[in-house]
Parts: sequence; C-alpha cells; structure tokens
Amino acid sequence: MLQFFTLDLLPAKNGEEPTMQFLLEVVDILTNYVRKTFDRSTKVLDFHHPHQLLEGMEGFNLELSDQPESLEQILVDCRDTLKYGVRTGHPRFFNQLSTGLDIIGLAGEWLTSTANTNMFTYEIAPVFVLMEQLTLKKMREIIGWPDGEGDGIFSPGGAISNMYSVMTARYKFFPEVKTKGMTAAPRLVLFTSEHSHYSIKKASAALGFGTENLILLSTDERGRVIPADLEAKVIDAKARGCVPMFVNATAGSTVYGAFDPIHEIADICEKYNMWLHVDGAWGGGLLMSRKHRHKLRGVERANSVTWNPHKMMGVPLQCSAILVRERGVLSGCNSMCAGYLFQPDKQYDVSYDTGDKAIQCGRHVDIFKFWLMWKAKGTIGFEHHIDKCLDLSHYLYTKIRDREGYQMVFEGEPQHTNVCFWYLPPGIRDMPDGQERRDRLHKVAPKIKALMMESGTTMVGYQPQGDKVNFFRMVISNPAATRSDIDFLTDEIERLGHDL
Amino acid sequence: MLQFFTLDLLPAKNGEEPTMQFLLEVVDILTNYVRKTFDRSTKVLDFHHPHQLLEGMEGFNLELSDQPESLEQILVDCRDTLKYGVRTGHPRFFNQLSTGLDIIGLAGEWLTSTANTNMFTYEIAPVFVLMEQLTLKKMREIIGWPDGEGDGIFSPGGAISNMYSVMTARYKFFPEVKTKGMTAAPRLVLFTSEHSHYSIKKASAALGFGTENLILLSTDERGRVIPADLEAKVIDAKARGCVPMFVNATAGSTVYGAFDPIHEIADICEKYNMWLHVDGAWGGGLLMSRKHRHKLRGVERANSVTWNPHKMMGVPLQCSAILVRERGVLSGCNSMCAGYLFQPDKQYDVSYDTGDKAIQCGRHVDIFKFWLMWKAKGTIGFEHHIDKCLDLSHYLYTKIRDREGYQMVFEGEPQHTNVCFWYLPPGIRDMPDGQERRDRLHKVAPKIKALMMESGTTMVGYQPQGDKVNFFRMVISNPAATRSDIDFLTDEIERLGHDL
Repeated sequence: MLQFFTLDLLPAKNGEEPTMQFLLEVVDILTNYVRKTFDRSTKVLDFHHPHQLLEGMEGFNLELSDQPESLEQILVDCRDTLKYGVRTGHPRFFNQLSTGLDIIGLAGEWLTSTANTNMFTYEIAPVFVLMEQLTLKKMREIIGWPDGEGDGIFSPGGAISNMYSVMTARYKFFPEVKTKGMTAAPRLVLFTSEHSHYSIKKASAALGFGTENLILLSTDERGRVIPADLEAKVIDAKARGCVPMFVNATAGSTVYGAFDPIHEIADICEKYNMWLHVDGAWGGGLLMSRKHRHKLRGVERANSVTWNPHKMMGVPLQCSAILVRERGVLSGCNSMCAGYLFQPDKQYDVSYDTGDKAIQCGRHVDIFKFWLMWKAKGTIGFEHHIDKCLDLSHYLYTKIRDREGYQMVFEGEPQHTNVCFWYLPPGIRDMPDGQERRDRLHKVAPKIKALMMESGTTMVGYQPQGDKVNFFRMVISNPAATRSDIDFLTDEIERLGHDL
Repeated sequence: MLQFFTLDLLPAKNGEEPTMQFLLEVVDILTNYVRKTFDRSTKVLDFHHPHQLLEGMEGFNLELSDQPESLEQILVDCRDTLKYGVRTGHPRFFNQLSTGLDIIGLAGEWLTSTANTNMFTYEIAPVFVLMEQLTLKKMREIIGWPDGEGDGIFSPGGAISNMYSVMTARYKFFPEVKTKGMTAAPRLVLFTSEHSHYSIKKASAALGFGTENLILLSTDERGRVIPADLEAKVIDAKARGCVPMFVNATAGSTVYGAFDPIHEIADICEKYNMWLHVDGAWGGGLLMSRKHRHKLRGVERANSVTWNPHKMMGVPLQCSAILVRERGVLSGCNSMCAGYLFQPDKQYDVSYDTGDKAIQCGRHVDIFKFWLMWKAKGTIGFEHHIDKCLDLSHYLYTKIRDREGYQMVFEGEPQHTNVCFWYLPPGIRDMPDGQERRDRLHKVAPKIKALMMESGTTMVGYQPQGDKVNFFRMVISNPAATRSDIDFLTDEIERLGHDL
C-alpha cells in the first residue's frame, strides 16, 4: 500500500488489485479490533482529553488538508481512530443502553454500507423495503395488534420515533394542523412521566406545542407514573380550557428502568379520548421474552409504540422503529407526494414506495442488520439474550442490595436491567444524614467514573435524579457480559472509591 | 461454516475462530460485489416485482422464524440480498443524486459500524466528536464565514437538516415558542421556490407552521427564484398581517439543478429581517470547486446552510450537515440538558458533549467516512471529482442539445449536472403540438424506464414538473461514469424508445 493513493483504487484502470488489497488490510484492522473487544485483558478505552487529541498524537493528526494522504497513512488513521475510541462491545462497557458488538449485526452493517442505497423507493431498495415491511409486521404481531395490522417505519433513533408519535397523534385529531399550522388547533397539552426520556420534551418544543404544554406526571418511588395523577391533571387541563391530546407511557425508563402501568393509563386515554403512545425504546425488547413481557401488559392498547432494537436487542446502531396501530395515519400525516421520487406511473406496485411516510427524504437502511440477526438468532435467540441480561442484573441487585457500602436508590427488584445505587466510601458511611453528607456523596460517582475512565478498566453511567444526588445507573444489554464482569465492576468501584 | 450458528461466534468460548472465518466469508461476498459494481458487463439490477420477492426466490426467503438459521444460510441470505438489490455504484446508475461507491468511504463505514458508538457525548465518541467539529469548521470556512465561526451538526439527511434550519430561525426570532408553542408567535410565513425540495414543506407541516403558510415563489424558465416575486410576496404577506420569517434559497434544485440568486435574496432578507437558509443539499458540493463555486455566490450571507456530502461529493449514505452562522442558537433551540447524559461534573471539558444540540438523542456516526475521504482525497480531490462530473454533464448536454429526437426541457447550459430532456420516439416527432402529443409523450419516459429496469442495463430518473409532461432528469455524481457511459445511456434510450 505504500505508494498508493485513493486515485489508484477503483474505478481507476487496474484499480482492482490495490482496491482488494486495501479493503483486506482494513478488514484486518477491524477483525483485530473485534478480537480485542472481547478480550478482557484489553482496556475499554484509552482516555485522552480533547485538547490532547486536538494537538495530535504521534502520527495521528485530525486536521484536513488540501493534498491527499497515502493509503498507508489512511490505514494508520483507521488504526488510531479505533485506538483512541471506546470499545462499546467490551464485556465491561456498561455506560449506555446500547452496548455489545453482535457479529451478525456487524456483518449486516458492512453489507448495508456496501449496498449504499436509500430507503425511499422500492425502485432502488427492493429487498430492504420488503424486509422492513415484514419485520415491522412481525413487531406489530408481537405487540399484539390483530394480524400485525397497522403501520410503521424505521427512524434515526428513539427521539425521532417519539417525535413521530406526537406528530401522528396530532394529525389524527387535528389534521388541519398539517396545512394551517398550530394556530388552527385549540391549546393542546401532552402528558408524560417526570422520569420519561427528554425526547418527548424535545418533540413538544420542535413541533410547536411548547414545553410548557407538556405536563409532567408524578411517579411512585419506583419511577412509575401514578395513574390518578394523570387523571387529575387531565381534568385540571380541561378546566383551564386546554385539550388533552397525547399521553406517553414509558416502558423502561432511562434511569430507573421503570414500566408505567399501561392498562390503567389506557383506561384514562380512552375515557378522555387521548392518543396513547408507549415509549418502549429501552423496554420494548422485553416483548421478546415470555418471562418478562408482562411488564408491558396493555401495550396492545397503545396507538403507537417506539421500540429500539439497537438497545435491548443488541442490534448495532441505529435501529429504531415507530409502530402505529391505525393504518394510513402515518402517511396522511407526512406525505407530500413529491413527483420526482414517487411517480404514480411506475411499472411496479407503488404502494411499496414507502418513503413518503417519513419526515426524512433519504433514509438510511437500518433494517438489514436487524433482519439478518433475526434470521440468525431466531425469535428464540432474542428471548435468550434478554432473559440472560435480566438474570445478570438480578445477580447484581441481590449482590449489592445488602452489601456494606452500597445503598439502593429505590427499594425492590428493578423491573429492567437498570440497577441504581450509591456507593458510599467508608469515610462517609457513618456521617449523619444532612447537607454535608449529600454534598460529599454527590461527588463520589463522578470521581469514581473519572478514575475508571482514566484507568480504562470499565465504564458505567451516573446522574442525579430529582432531589437524589449523583448515583450509579448500571445497565446490562451486552451479551458478552458475565457474572465475573459484574464482580469486576463492583470491585473496581470499591477499589477506586474506597478513599474518597 | 456449515455446522455453525450465531451462538458459536464471539462472545462464545472458542468463538474467535468461527467469528473470523465468518467475517472473512462475508468480506469475500462484499469484495466480489464491489468488483462487479465497477464491471460494465454486469447489470445494474436484476429486477423482480414485490410479489415475486415476497413469494420467495429459490433459497431466499424473507420470512422471519422462531428458530435460528445456520451461518451457511446467513451467507446465502447476504449473497441474495445483494443479488436482488440495485448496484448504486455501477457506472451506469444515474437514478439518484447519490450514486457511486467510494472505496475509502466504504472502508470508513465498515470501521464506523465496527466501532458501533453514538455521537451524543465526547465520553463515548471522543475521536468522532472532534472529527465532526473540525470538519464542520472546515465547511464553514469554505462557505466563507469568518474564521469558520458558527455552529452545525451532522443530521440524518437533507430533509432533517432543512428542518433544523426552520427550527433554528424560529428560535432566533421567537425563542418563546420553545416553551409556549406556536400560539405565542404571530402568524409566521416561510418562503421557498416552487422548484425547491419537498422537505421544506414537510418541515412546515411538522413544526406547526402549516403548509399553507409556506409561500411558493415563482421561478424563471430555468427554475431560479425571481427575487422581485419574493419581495412582492413578502409585502403582500405583511399586508395580510403575517410575519415573514424565513426564506429558503435552493442551491441546486432537485430536478433542474437550478441555483437561486442568493445575493438578491439576501438583500431582501436583510431588508425585511428574515432568516436566509440556503439548501445546498445537492449543490453545496460545488463550493469545493474553484470553477463552479460562483454559482453559490452570496452563500456567506446565509444564516444557515444545508450541505450533503453524500450527494455531489460521493460520500456513502448518510452524510448531511446543517451549518449555522450564529453560535449558540442551535443549542439554544434544542438543548434540554438531560442529566443522565450531559452531566456537568465530568472530568473533561463538557463543551465537547455536543449531543444536546440535536433533536435526536442517539445519533449515528456519519462523520468518519467523510473525514477519511477528505484525508485520502484532499480538498483538491473533491474539486477534481466535482469538475469531472460537471464536465460529463456538459458532454451530455452538448451531445443531445441539437440531436434529432431530443428536446431540452429548458434552454441553455444546465447549472448543475442535471440535464433535463424529452426523448421523442420517431412516431411522435411529427405530430402537431397538442393534447394528444402531450399524452403520448407523457408515457414515453415511464415506458423506457420500465424497460431499462427490466433489462437491467441502466437507470435514470424521470418526472413531470408543473405543466411539463414526464421528462428524463439525468444527473451525474458518480466518479466511475465516463463519456462511454453517457453514450450508452442515450443509445439505450433510443433503442428502448424507438418504437414507442
């Protein structure tokens, strides 16, 4: 590769040999990375501050220049990009809801980028469009909608899926907003848990409702919406002249992993004629498990559901679906019938040109990796994966529940794999409750996290929540994790936090 | 691979060997596909109707089942998925604005999916976050904003980038809409060309303006906005009590490839205090060319710019940037400060946690392939690529301009690579102008296109526009295309269309 440049590669004349050689060298870098990802003797990350990477590490310079670099340097750039990144598939990476590196999913992504096409029409993505339709139907069947009827689309992440749900609800109740704008509707209000994901708030702002018209619902100590609070707030909003339109029930909240009681919420939605959305971005995967799907009891009563296979089901990023019970409302909401893409006079059945349902025009192919994983694992394989992750979090919970130096953020077995806890260094264990202890405890998790990242051994998230000071939120979605990794994490927390 | 299943792969014990073997077999399939993509003796596509693929081709069944499939079958599925797809990198694929298969970009995507991380924080995407910042700055410099100052983000496609521009404009002028909703603002109107991309209309609907408050501007015969029409419509809107807020100028329209006169539009925007957005999704790439960037003269006066490297610059899908001149307004518009992601008490400079600027939460890494291509080609390489594509379209234009059987949709040299023309089969050449001729001509392009797809030899788009019946829109963004491919296309149109 020493002497070659990008202009020597295909489509250049005689470009085939250097192209193949270059791609195989890249693959060699990637397969080495895959190997190391699963190797517990490697670090999760090799942390550097922004200014260090910006100044340039030896041989790795982020700046772009006018002149081309040799392919040899490009290979070095690839190696270094991985070197200074974070191994999100490492068995000890617990930092996000999306972890793990599924080999089939990875192969699916490689193929997707090689096919390099776009989801807007059957014309240029025939196989992927059909895979999307079949997979969405399967997901709707699993939700429990009769014959898997309904509609849906894969979107670039759960936040956009949730945004779709609000848009679709608005179109269902006030279709004139599409043409006349929000001033054509009465003052609409939306409801969601104080523990729900911030994307509902982002959607309220973006779509023109305003965040003040998103009413936050109180939760019990486990983070689950209190249905009576919803009803009281609906009545209050109506009394103030507002029109309650949309309720989001979270199935698997981001921090606590809480599942809102869907049936009770659905009763209220029916009574007051509101759209029920279930944000199952994180918890939707539990529908695949006969043991755990009861946590989403009532989901079949939802008007729409967000479900991110890229979280609990281990599919590579991104893969998020918005599913809608009623057919037609999603396309009614979004279609604009652009003549240059969606010609009615094509030679095939143009009902397969699904792109006009999207708020996007071009849409990345997110389906193939998921479809391929489903083929390779079977429905049963996803069930095993999910049951295993929940077993592991049960192991962690029972391990630390009564252990000295740990305090659970809420009582009782977590509903999802989220285990929320404080680690109390010996120095503060005997301090009396009060502001000073709170202040010190608030600093413990960030300090341990910083030390973890600097040593590169493991990663886990932390945050405050309401009046609770910083605590760790452990989540497990990585099939590579085992009990020994859980033990490693708690040992590491104790090692790094002991003297704080 | 015969006996293996996904459970035999990593993280399984002894999973390393089958994992490497499996990945290399996948790579073998992919590199074969790459090789064939550039081989003109292969077809662009092997067309099948939806019902044919749904019924299942031999050995290829799209249905998902409960039980896992063997890795051997998974490899067959991969092969067949590519077999029944469309080779968007083929030198004779001219169907979309995004074509081609850049080898460096492809390698970049393979690496991106292997890294499998998310753009929301520096914490889990340190290298990618910095690459995004540096690249956006470089793009802003090229736009001509002093010192590359400003803000921006990569988004999932041009439609979302355009949506960002409308949201950001609204926040700049009426920040209270974020909290109070659209009812807190006066009746706002937006302006865009009748030739502009439909995403502006989608944004008007989604964000709560209403499509009726998007005012379409008249264009000249080349599809360029007439500035006087804008000013007249602004004055008229004000007289009706509306508040003109936002103007979209298109730099490279989807069908005609027209560039709106930005300077004249900017003058009007300044005069009436409106946000100027330039939708350069398609034409932005021309900024890289010293020869062609004059077509975007005045772009530095825009408040925001959409620019999709995945179109004219040949970057794999998806790669779209929204760039904003004023710092702070993008994050002001979108930030919600979620505590679980954007902790203020991290050990590093959290101004690098850029995720809160997005309407997404998780965000796919779209930057790496682009950064890597820039490294490999240099700025100069993009310039060559763009100049070459425009040279090719000039070749096509001069070839068919006066050729018998062709009629140009508009007079004069196209501004972008879009060449719009009718092919007139001999049977209608001598027909008198009138409804019958129009009706017959309207059917010609769809028929030729259907025959092309069935024979699989080439692909080019068609559409009607306003009162013009179906015509071909030829676009060139593929670096693999040569004059011989252009000749092939016209020969093919004549061969397939001769007897219509």
